Amino acid sequence: MRNTLDPKRTVAELKELRALTGNADGAQRVAWTATWARAREWLKTKMTALPVEREVDEAGNLWFTLKGKSKQALLIGGHLDSVPNGGWLDGCLNVLAGVEVLRRIAAEGTPPVTIRLVDWADEEGARFGRSLFGSSCVSGAIEPKDVRGLVDRHGVTLREALSAHGVDLARVKKARRQLKNAAAYIELHIEQGPVLESLKKPMGVVLGTFGVERHAIRFTGQNAHSGSTPMAHRRDALGGVSKLHLAIREIAAKHAGVCTVGKVTTEPGIATAVVGQADMLLDQRHLDAKKLARMYAAARKASERIAKDEKIGVAWSTLWAIQPFPFNPELIRLGDEAIKDVCGVSHRLPSGPLHDAAEVCRTGVPTVMLFVQSLRGISHNKIEDTKEAHLEKAVLAFDRLATKVMHWIVAQR
Amino acid sequence: MRNTLDPKRTVAELKELRALTGNADGAQRVAWTATWARAREWLKTKMTALPVEREVDEAGNLWFTLKGKSKQALLIGGHLDSVPNGGWLDGCLNVLAGVEVLRRIAAEGTPPVTIRLVDWADEEGARFGRSLFGSSCVSGAIEPKDVRGLVDRHGVTLREALSAHGVDLARVKKARRQLKNAAAYIELHIEQGPVLESLKKPMGVVLGTFGVERHAIRFTGQNAHSGSTPMAHRRDALGGVSKLHLAIREIAAKHAGVCTVGKVTTEPGIATAVVGQADMLLDQRHLDAKKLARMYAAARKASERIAKDEKIGVAWSTLWAIQPFPFNPELIRLGDEAIKDVCGVSHRLPSGPLHDAAEVCRTGVPTVMLFVQSLRGISHNKIEDTKEAHLEKAVLAFDRLATKVMHWIVAQR
Repeated sequence: MRNTLDPKRTVAELKELRALTGNADGAQRVAWTATWARAREWLKTKMTALPVEREVDEAGNLWFTLKGKSKQALLIGGHLDSVPNGGWLDGCLNVLAGVEVLRRIAAEGTPPVTIRLVDWADEEGARFGRSLFGSSCVSGAIEPKDVRGLVDRHGVTLREALSAHGVDLARVKKARRQLKNAAAYIELHIEQGPVLESLKKPMGVVLGTFGVERHAIRFTGQNAHSGSTPMAHRRDALGGVSKLHLAIREIAAKHAGVCTVGKVTTEPGIATAVVGQADMLLDQRHLDAKKLARMYAAARKASERIAKDEKIGVAWSTLWAIQPFPFNPELIRLGDEAIKDVCGVSHRLPSGPLHDAAEVCRTGVPTVMLFVQSLRGISHNKIEDTKEAHLEKAVLAFDRLATKVMHWIVAQR
Repeated sequence: MRNTLDPKRTVAELKELRALTGNADGAQRVAWTATWARAREWLKTKMTALPVEREVDEAGNLWFTLKGKSKQALLIGGHLDSVPNGGWLDGCLNVLAGVEVLRRIAAEGTPPVTIRLVDWADEEGARFGRSLFGSSCVSGAIEPKDVRGLVDRHGVTLREALSAHGVDLARVKKARRQLKNAAAYIELHIEQGPVLESLKKPMGVVLGTFGVERHAIRFTGQNAHSGSTPMAHRRDALGGVSKLHLAIREIAAKHAGVCTVGKVTTEPGIATAVVGQADMLLDQRHLDAKKLARMYAAARKASERIAKDEKIGVAWSTLWAIQPFPFNPELIRLGDEAIKDVCGVSHRLPSGPLHDAAEVCRTGVPTVMLFVQSLRGISHNKIEDTKEAHLEKAVLAFDRLATKVMHWIVAQR
């Protein structure tokens, strides 16, 4: 049987999509917009030649199903939606690699298991601030009442925007039925980080998505005149921020996680006053839930010790938290094999950013992702890029993974 | 001869002025406004009974001259103007204590030297951002062309505002003639800091005004994703700010000066990105010019070492600088004596804030200031306060200082 897989076609289709839905500032396929809908219409034209059933579910996810000998299904996922001024690969590489894999499998006749390609709706959350929308509906993690009030910057509500695309917010959780026969989920994505490039490796298999603790921390000291207040009389709220920021970097290194202070603000914020109030945003991530909890506890403890030393107050408020989603060890092993088959070398790494795969993993469906190297570690930007040779390798490895996982599903019975 | 000095009258007049020119939010005597002009008209009424000549000079400073046996003059200064929502003492205590001293001296007949009370115009710079306006005209430190473009928040130019009060910006430096016969300058002020209160001392003599180095410092790292960028791959611009802030506090302590980081800003300033660019405002002050220069050099050196360690860039830009103005050692000794005569104890301290006295000192006229304790170290606020018993002591000590300095001037001949 001839292998009809054509990775160069995937690269060509990525460029075709870029021309159709991007401009000089980058990709513009923001979910629930006309450009996004145009991208999906284009995707449908790519699938008309294949013996697949097409469906848009209650959450707006677009599914293509190639029926197999078994109802048990291998799911392949991605998202056509992008951030505004986004890159040419983030999300759509996943979908178009899936299209190519589906073509190859369909050309070989009825597969042993059912193969389903899903274009998740609104992975980015760029317009309403709620990422992983479609996959969270399928996993059941979303509550419509929690997102009903979301409004874009033009005052359009999420409910109105969904309605314009035929989605009824009240019914989105009915999409949970999509996972009924799901036996495994695989996704290919660009790394969006610097690790594979720094290791000179084209690809890596993803161990899971980081859990996240995100907190706002406020130190309260005493606003005082810069000239008339001797150092020993000061209660400098910024002292809390500076010391905690440095402590947090140590905590991250000690626990092999990542911790970021991304924003600092100072009040009154003038040259002639000691800072009376200083706020900082903390983001902590780890693949291991226990270690994440330890990093969080260590940061709180450090903040309290520092506040005492500086004679200032400290208060924490949680902005957001999510647990880690470690992927399936067997599928990780198969991913590693698939990459080694194609690239000779592989690498195992966690995913810092969240992906739709995390939502599927949350439901207990065995899940894995493959990463392909990003140049300069940059994404969500028009300069996001990956070498074409690496994109082609990624399609090849992803196709091998699909085959391996099909056999694994069959062997699991 | 009966001493007619009545410190309680000064406190009563301060309250009278507060009622006339303040509201529920505090003092509203912003220079070049109708309320400020009303305060000055009120001051004139207080002086009509005295044998003084009155004059408004080319810079808008209001002078009252009590002719003495010699043309050599003792200058007593203060400012009726306040910040918006200011306190009831800052600037006007100086003037009204001067009024009381002038009354006492005038009651005793022709003094051995000429006594001149000056109400400086626009000490605060609250409306146009240029503080010490009137005294800088007299010292010659101001250049009309440098301030011609200043505009208030309603779009009124400084030139227009001055003109409405009979001051021609082009002619302000003609006011330099006012220092022709100046033999000494004395000023009483609230401390505006916490030192005297913490020492439980009512008053202190001021050693001079701090020199100031004020700089904006920018650290440039690499904006990167909080999740996908391992700690070892980061170039965290905020690392520069945190380390330098802590180093600067050490530098201040080591050199016995004061150094303040009053503002920090972060770009892009979001939870999901390592800080790519971080800016900080640095204010360094010292009474000793050499130590101030050493503190500045130490901060620059530290910033460069830190930038190297963090693999980030650093750039400095000077916002403002002024040299220290150490007051006259003999007058400091007399101030100390005057305070001890009245309070039993004294304290020698530098002034962190600038005062009109600094501008007079700049010209070489022997200068000294007395500070009276501020409650909670707070000023430029309606809650600014000083115990009335301390205000009365301050008037008594200031009057004693005036007598001592008169004798000192005579002895200098």
